Amino acid sequence: MEQNACIQTQLMHRTIRAFQDKALSEKQIHTLLDVSRHSASSTFNQAYSILGITDQDKKDAIAKICNQDYVATTAHLFIFLLDQNRNRRIAEAKGCTDTSILHTTDKFFTACSDALIAAQNMTNAAEAMGLGCVYLGSIQNDARAMIRLLNLPELTFPFLGLGVGYPDQEPQLKPKLPRSVIYQENNYMEIQNPVEQLAEYDSIVSEYYDLRDTNNRVDTFTNQTVAMMQRDPKKRAELLEVLHEQGFMLR
Amino acid sequence: MEQNACIQTQLMHRTIRAFQDKALSEKQIHTLLDVSRHSASSTFNQAYSILGITDQDKKDAIAKICNQDYVATTAHLFIFLLDQNRNRRIAEAKGCTDTSILHTTDKFFTACSDALIAAQNMTNAAEAMGLGCVYLGSIQNDARAMIRLLNLPELTFPFLGLGVGYPDQEPQLKPKLPRSVIYQENNYMEIQNPVEQLAEYDSIVSEYYDLRDTNNRVDTFTNQTVAMMQRDPKKRAELLEVLHEQGFMLR
Repeated sequence: MEQNACIQTQLMHRTIRAFQDKALSEKQIHTLLDVSRHSASSTFNQAYSILGITDQDKKDAIAKICNQDYVATTAHLFIFLLDQNRNRRIAEAKGCTDTSILHTTDKFFTACSDALIAAQNMTNAAEAMGLGCVYLGSIQNDARAMIRLLNLPELTFPFLGLGVGYPDQEPQLKPKLPRSVIYQENNYMEIQNPVEQLAEYDSIVSEYYDLRDTNNRVDTFTNQTVAMMQRDPKKRAELLEVLHEQGFMLR
Repeated sequence: MEQNACIQTQLMHRTIRAFQDKALSEKQIHTLLDVSRHSASSTFNQAYSILGITDQDKKDAIAKICNQDYVATTAHLFIFLLDQNRNRRIAEAKGCTDTSILHTTDKFFTACSDALIAAQNMTNAAEAMGLGCVYLGSIQNDARAMIRLLNLPELTFPFLGLGVGYPDQEPQLKPKLPRSVIYQENNYMEIQNPVEQLAEYDSIVSEYYDLRDTNNRVDTFTNQTVAMMQRDPKKRAELLEVLHEQGFMLR
């Protein structure tokens, strides 16, 4: 029974960037949040929070930061926050004065795990409902602006956005790296002859870009990998500083 | 149709720590990996790798690092790696000499997202198959030992383990923070009176610990939060240094 309906949906995951003008019901939103709540949490820390952006002006502002117009048209826009602020306030309210452990890399990793696992759990639930999703790493184009916009105190950080809604497109399935490249047993071996080893995958990716309905182009995975290295190094150059300003990973 | 079978499974997520002595089939393992492969990936970086630990000596060594005997009894033990090493090798093979962008916080975040989203996607698939899972943040108890054991080069990092197998227990559902605590709209507001606001949740958690079949005890969520602050600060104190040694987050 490996190939059940849930797994079929997961294997057909496509990022959706065009949404119908149709809101989610309160019941749907509650279900999505309840699934996130029931995610595994590192040492029971529950070191994340979720913001729902319902204010259209804020949605527009976030779309601007993301530099993606469709962000403003998502039926529901969730922002997944790393959140050790709540745990600090709880400890302080119980008389604990030393909460310095929350500034460690360990507790930052805990918050990352909690937030990202909760986000993907929500994505799976949304897709199981027939909804479509788009992850927005692009909220980090201007992390400081996001922090101001959402009023985020120390020990919180906006890690990922997730736009959810009724799909208004049916994109092709994007080909991903073959199993033999992402999976190894017992020992990590560096990829030896990437150009040869990825030649077939490159041609599949190239066909995908050529044939897709919108924004088709000539490109391969290995070319995109080279292009990534040449990105303007000033882009998102302040991330580490902002992370420290928020009190994360100080040691 | 919100409450479909996939979502019911997600809402019933329990961490499994006791497994039957029964291996996964090759087909099951391939399905799990294929689901991970089809996860969303930040800017198509696919900056993660998965190791499957099939060597029992290695499993035992990891169980020792995790300080959890059941790790050695998981039917299949996956280690999710942040991996920008592969992207570096690809770019170099195509003649690109400057891959310094891979040392930025931005590219570290990309790898975190890719690895953790792939891990939770796999967890959802495993649970949909009737298998049980345990996340192992505890591989970071000794990140350097993990790196040596798995032969991990620069620009890789062992972020999370995931043990999968046939459950040999049926643990109670662990109560999680209520929706009103983890979710807010438009603005982040710090929790105001945590002790009062979490009193009901604390009593639910306390009842859960009191009634659960194994390892029952007297505890609340807010007490655990205080206890977390008092943890030995030397525990995992080298994480940031190891991260830098691996070439991540240098700026």
